[in-house]
Amino acid sequence: MSIQPPPARLGDTLDDVDTPALLIDLDAFERNLDRMQALADAAGVHLRPHAKTHKSVDVAQAQMIRGAIGQCCQKVSEAEVLVHGGIDNVLVSNQIVGHRKLSRLARLARLATVGVCVDDAGNIAELSQHATAHGVELQVHLEIDVGMGRCGVPADAAAVALCRQIIDAPGLAFAGIQAYHGRAQHIRGAGERAGAIRHAAGVVQTMLGLLRDADIIGPTVTGAGTGTAPFEAESGLWTELQAGSYAFMDADYARNLGPDGDPDSRFEHSLYLLATIMSTARAGTAICDVGLKSTSLESGLPLVAGLPGASYVGPSDEHGTLSLDAGHQVKLGQKLRLIPGHCDPTINLHDWYVGYRNGVVERIWPVSARGAFF
Amino acid sequence: MSIQPPPARLGDTLDDVDTPALLIDLDAFERNLDRMQALADAAGVHLRPHAKTHKSVDVAQAQMIRGAIGQCCQKVSEAEVLVHGGIDNVLVSNQIVGHRKLSRLARLARLATVGVCVDDAGNIAELSQHATAHGVELQVHLEIDVGMGRCGVPADAAAVALCRQIIDAPGLAFAGIQAYHGRAQHIRGAGERAGAIRHAAGVVQTMLGLLRDADIIGPTVTGAGTGTAPFEAESGLWTELQAGSYAFMDADYARNLGPDGDPDSRFEHSLYLLATIMSTARAGTAICDVGLKSTSLESGLPLVAGLPGASYVGPSDEHGTLSLDAGHQVKLGQKLRLIPGHCDPTINLHDWYVGYRNGVVERIWPVSARGAFF
Repeated sequence: MSIQPPPARLGDTLDDVDTPALLIDLDAFERNLDRMQALADAAGVHLRPHAKTHKSVDVAQAQMIRGAIGQCCQKVSEAEVLVHGGIDNVLVSNQIVGHRKLSRLARLARLATVGVCVDDAGNIAELSQHATAHGVELQVHLEIDVGMGRCGVPADAAAVALCRQIIDAPGLAFAGIQAYHGRAQHIRGAGERAGAIRHAAGVVQTMLGLLRDADIIGPTVTGAGTGTAPFEAESGLWTELQAGSYAFMDADYARNLGPDGDPDSRFEHSLYLLATIMSTARAGTAICDVGLKSTSLESGLPLVAGLPGASYVGPSDEHGTLSLDAGHQVKLGQKLRLIPGHCDPTINLHDWYVGYRNGVVERIWPVSARGAFF
Repeated sequence: MSIQPPPARLGDTLDDVDTPALLIDLDAFERNLDRMQALADAAGVHLRPHAKTHKSVDVAQAQMIRGAIGQCCQKVSEAEVLVHGGIDNVLVSNQIVGHRKLSRLARLARLATVGVCVDDAGNIAELSQHATAHGVELQVHLEIDVGMGRCGVPADAAAVALCRQIIDAPGLAFAGIQAYHGRAQHIRGAGERAGAIRHAAGVVQTMLGLLRDADIIGPTVTGAGTGTAPFEAESGLWTELQAGSYAFMDADYARNLGPDGDPDSRFEHSLYLLATIMSTARAGTAICDVGLKSTSLESGLPLVAGLPGASYVGPSDEHGTLSLDAGHQVKLGQKLRLIPGHCDPTINLHDWYVGYRNGVVERIWPVSARGAFF
């Protein structure tokens, strides 16, 4: 609720920035955006970056100006923020349930091209009711389960019947298939990740065959994340990539795709947490001001960047305990950069991005959809 | 950044509430507030509840009207929200480092009684400079390490010298000792928790003896949390209790203090997450809309309340996978309540509390210091 003032001013050096702060290394960030767009262009597929990661109109615009076809997001409230920020094509890559959310979704389709995913006949009927009540057309994607085991239906005759229901429903356009393998993104080995997407591709191929047999031609196939995008891009099946984390990377993805991970790593860390040392009362240890309320921990602890001999070992709600190797010391008030374990939920804890280049603050962007989980 | 409209209206039933929503069972909440105040009163100590948990002016006021002496919090920005919300006595139970934060802290002391903790001579000198520059007096507590191994100094002659430095510093009043054992709060066995506080009491006793020898008489001793408050209250050493979670409880504390934990359990669950079933495409499983961005997971998964046969087994960023025992089914759109694993960081993900009584929404409170981590 509390909107805190931004932790920096344009032109500040990083030492001037108040902490905890979410930093973007703009050079690395822009290289990441260019690389993913080039990857999509080279494969002849569209890029629809996932705004669930960045939750930012400014980041979305930086992706769109490079050639992205639109954005995806997980929540109606995120879609609202994007559309009101000038993004004219948004896919909610998720099931939307309940009158209040369906009504918001349909209203939004007056202002932009709005897509949504389904895996239930009753939900399709409700979407149709809300779309016709608001005089709009919604772009509806059937979600098939390609191995993730979360939402989505199997690729079978019942799935074709759901597509037919969408086609026949007033106010709905059948846009295609949502085929996202979230679990595959975080498989460590590149070979096993490729294998998971080969399996997913088999499911997609089955579904496309069934649709062809039913004279349902040319659907969009949308999916993929940062961990697997090259595989979906090269498959010849997917027409749209939904990756998000590539813009920033994090400690978890770095273990797969970073300099120490994949040999053909494409993406660099561009997202950091700036922290301040707030206690040095005990030898061999220092306490910084980044804890659970400014970094997400469910995918592992943050890494310390550029401070040899220091590691982040003990999180509490508002503190982080650093262990210092023998011979290493830090000073009270000293700033340090951390690489978050998992970018998406970490960003969602912050109200501001501080973008810097050559050590100087060049952009201050609101995390415009922070907390938009409705 | 995005301020979402509240998920409910006054008078709504729980079925009308949009999700994810942070619910307060007002009856249980008020009983918890009364019980902790009674515990403090019976022991003749002050209660200074911790606003790091609730981050809410409304909850703070409900505690103050019952007899709390003030609030504590961890951040200057939290203290600002509390003071601007009418709370006139706030202790920042934490080290405050850096010009920008020190300046905000000193300015705030023009409006209210403001305390802060220290464990460093240089930091004391800086506090003094900022207090005198703003013409205010800050209430300064020396933090001693009573077994937590985070911030704070040992109870020794050097600690007495720091107290003397505070006493002699312009703009600072020596208020007492911060003696908080955070780690002890989450020890499972009541006997071991009591043992940890006996150790802490020994350190406090040593420190009080050293201060007495130095003719420094009558300091406040402030500390304790929900897991150990009865022990500090009964010790005869602590003069102030800083518990916070007791107002709400969570799955982690319930394992210590809930109906299945301590036999003399005092506190009830009053905090729930309301979720909606958004996919039932796979048998034996259902997907709800509470994931990492609306519940904190680092202290364990949320528990399902009042829906026998269902357990929350798989979190993702925006989804939660429920496993359903044989013979149990849920419907698309069905609402369910979850008990968060850890209340503090979960609350910090939400913009609104929805308080209900007898199934009807009676209060809608902003999480007024959400995201206030500066």
